[in-house]
Amino acid sequence: MFESAEAGHTVSQKAFRREEAVLRNELLLAQNALRNEAAFPVLIVIAGMEGSGRRETIACLHEWLDPRFLSTVAFVDADRDDPDHPPMWRYWQALPPRGRIGILADSWYAAPMAQRLAGELKRMQLDARLERIRRLETLLVNEGALLLKFWFHLGKAAQMARYRQLRDHPETAWRVSAASRMRLGQYDAVRKVAAHVLRLSSTAEAPWIILDGSDDNYRKLAVGRALRDALAQRAGHPPPRIPHAAPLQTGRDRRNVLSTLDLSLALSDRKYERELARLQGRLAGLMRHRRFARHSLVLAFEGMDAAGKGGAIRRVSAALDPRIFQIVPVAAPSDEERAQPWLWRFWRRVPGKGRVTIFDRSWYGRVLVERIEGFCSEADWLRAYAEICDFEHELVEAGAIVLKFWLQIDKAEQLRRFREREQTSWKQFKITQEDWRNRGKWAQYQEAAVDMIDRTGTGRAPWITIEANDKRHARIKILRSICEAVEHAMGID
Amino acid sequence: MFESAEAGHTVSQKAFRREEAVLRNELLLAQNALRNEAAFPVLIVIAGMEGSGRRETIACLHEWLDPRFLSTVAFVDADRDDPDHPPMWRYWQALPPRGRIGILADSWYAAPMAQRLAGELKRMQLDARLERIRRLETLLVNEGALLLKFWFHLGKAAQMARYRQLRDHPETAWRVSAASRMRLGQYDAVRKVAAHVLRLSSTAEAPWIILDGSDDNYRKLAVGRALRDALAQRAGHPPPRIPHAAPLQTGRDRRNVLSTLDLSLALSDRKYERELARLQGRLAGLMRHRRFARHSLVLAFEGMDAAGKGGAIRRVSAALDPRIFQIVPVAAPSDEERAQPWLWRFWRRVPGKGRVTIFDRSWYGRVLVERIEGFCSEADWLRAYAEICDFEHELVEAGAIVLKFWLQIDKAEQLRRFREREQTSWKQFKITQEDWRNRGKWAQYQEAAVDMIDRTGTGRAPWITIEANDKRHARIKILRSICEAVEHAMGID
Repeated sequence: MFESAEAGHTVSQKAFRREEAVLRNELLLAQNALRNEAAFPVLIVIAGMEGSGRRETIACLHEWLDPRFLSTVAFVDADRDDPDHPPMWRYWQALPPRGRIGILADSWYAAPMAQRLAGELKRMQLDARLERIRRLETLLVNEGALLLKFWFHLGKAAQMARYRQLRDHPETAWRVSAASRMRLGQYDAVRKVAAHVLRLSSTAEAPWIILDGSDDNYRKLAVGRALRDALAQRAGHPPPRIPHAAPLQTGRDRRNVLSTLDLSLALSDRKYERELARLQGRLAGLMRHRRFARHSLVLAFEGMDAAGKGGAIRRVSAALDPRIFQIVPVAAPSDEERAQPWLWRFWRRVPGKGRVTIFDRSWYGRVLVERIEGFCSEADWLRAYAEICDFEHELVEAGAIVLKFWLQIDKAEQLRRFREREQTSWKQFKITQEDWRNRGKWAQYQEAAVDMIDRTGTGRAPWITIEANDKRHARIKILRSICEAVEHAMGID
Repeated sequence: MFESAEAGHTVSQKAFRREEAVLRNELLLAQNALRNEAAFPVLIVIAGMEGSGRRETIACLHEWLDPRFLSTVAFVDADRDDPDHPPMWRYWQALPPRGRIGILADSWYAAPMAQRLAGELKRMQLDARLERIRRLETLLVNEGALLLKFWFHLGKAAQMARYRQLRDHPETAWRVSAASRMRLGQYDAVRKVAAHVLRLSSTAEAPWIILDGSDDNYRKLAVGRALRDALAQRAGHPPPRIPHAAPLQTGRDRRNVLSTLDLSLALSDRKYERELARLQGRLAGLMRHRRFARHSLVLAFEGMDAAGKGGAIRRVSAALDPRIFQIVPVAAPSDEERAQPWLWRFWRRVPGKGRVTIFDRSWYGRVLVERIEGFCSEADWLRAYAEICDFEHELVEAGAIVLKFWLQIDKAEQLRRFREREQTSWKQFKITQEDWRNRGKWAQYQEAAVDMIDRTGTGRAPWITIEANDKRHARIKILRSICEAVEHAMGID
């Protein structure tokens, strides 16, 4: 893994100056083209051994590039910095938009490596974390990001020399902390963990670039060249789309998770009122339970137009303290959202601990409306199933209770509700031409919904299908499902 | 102040049901029109005595209105919740965009009132806080917000009755905390502070609506009606613009803060290199000083095109750890930013403690390009001077070191630099038709800059005018000014 990086590389000051002058201009022009076209973001991960020149290289990139369109973020220990949100949340917040360059110092690799070294993570746990990172990186690359990962290596002798040099110079002595001295003593362990991490996280779409960190000039030029070449290669060449081998399903019969629902299920008014009050009280109590402070609640509502999502959400939110929840009605993305990977706009709404977010339509739009209307390519929505599962997995891992409701009505019931809306003055605004157009694609939506439920229903983030021809039955089943899931998660069932 | 609210108001259940049915529809239609037109945001402040029904009323609004386009935020004690940012910062983050309704429970009034009651604020300090709140509210209203402030009052006997009712009911007993029992014993003090606060913060543009809180039905209907009527009144009636009496200045001569600068000031290359290294080292050291953890640094760079802002920023940022600063190049606002009051997009970039934000162009665009190009009305940019001073005052109060640089070049020097850019391959992208157009408005920009400096230079957030015909002199003066200001703020000069 580190053989070539330990072979010794140096660049003379004179050679450095000569190449630097050319490289700077090339980088500046490439950065400007990137900014003007705003076609994709660039993400640079800078990692490496203690004292391997990460800081110097980042400073150098800020000097070479236009620093106004470059940002560096560092999360020393994302798991502990903000225990309120899932660890990946803060990386999502910090992603550069299309056209910009973002540097990650202490990236998503820092925390798992440090925890493994401190003995807080078992090997298997480390591997699981790496797998999640790998999947996130794949998503980013598929969304168009240019991802460059640099590892600066130092041999043992080089590291000691570097340490003495820092320590003995008054301007850098402050950087030699007790922690860094400790890590110095762990050289062999660090090297071993690093080799393991690099091996497991080097992928075709985001390979590690391993460089000798001992010579400043060599390292800086190597990074600059790699960035220049990567930008040149990408300019005008969109990344190849993942080929898709076969249709999702063939030879379907009429029996599926939706067609087998009993839409005749109904509740009497009296029973509904009684149950509603009881369940809203139960949910309100659960939200005030001290154990809920360790959790959060994420609810996604999907269904055909007029399936009763709004009314159901209203019955749920009525049980919640308005100060702890937000409802996110999902419509077209804003321009800031369009400049980011598609899941970004959902990540930014993820609730903190003790809080609730209700999504009226959700990230599942990717495999419903976007699939059917062709707003994204087939490759895009096909990979979305896995991306969604990963997203929800991150939430669940961080204590979130994730529930997804599909409200199923039949076509006749939809027609009845459309007509009713047209005839009720204060409901007229709820019915538009688009609703009628979507109705024309009923079968396609049903097929997409079946695929969605089959492919993203997991034990920890289940789909709950709701027979919604009767609104009373639907609302009660939703409330009950939420109460039971929350009780189960908090261990009080 | 509270006379009418103590006169006793009740609405029977039957009368409530009857009016509620009509009011709900009216509110829903008004909310929908608000959302479709997206012309202005609605901000509802709900405040009042302990047990006066704030919670119930907020829940009722969530029931009556479409909760998907309504959000409630509460900051129990904004001053302590997030000591990293100025107290007003989190309210700015939580403002509803145009077309939405936001409810502030525990608004910006909560912390000062609680602190005054706890004896932590002197009367004069309270009044100063109220003045700042008043100025913020004026800004919001001038930016188009519909601001409704409700105070729910309870007489002493009514409050005791309400407390017993809550305590004795198993579903509400949890709400009677030790803190609320304590505040109950302070009735007279609370009443006195409340009367004072309401008096000082009732303005023509945002008067308090004081309501008897003792009867649930009366209170809810009163709030619903007030909201309905306010929405109806605003629909299609933009708020009147503030009249402007006289031109800013008359009979100007040629002597002003810019014309009197000595643009011949220059530095030799040798002296520049030596000073640059020295000052960058000094600044780097200051940023690592432990006292800086209590401060933040906000730098704004303004000047004509080609005045050397970018180059100067580069020399400053080179002295900073890339992990603690961000550079914000100010261009056209995003659509999320356009849906908010104009200062919002700068508030969202305010650095936390120990961090630096460098603005390449800034909020001063309001009184420069927006004034000259007519992007906002005269009334808008005229009030901006005071709004900017208030904004910077909030930052300084929270420990920020705020410095504003105007880089002054003369017209001949600008021409020379434009020509040079056109002739240097890797600088060509920096010169556009717009630069030439702006150059045609040189005199207007100079006049606007003089007004700006005269009207917004304060002792705590000063303008530093930079003689920038010589880039070396400019950069050194900027770096020295920053070092001196930081040292002064940290008390080490």
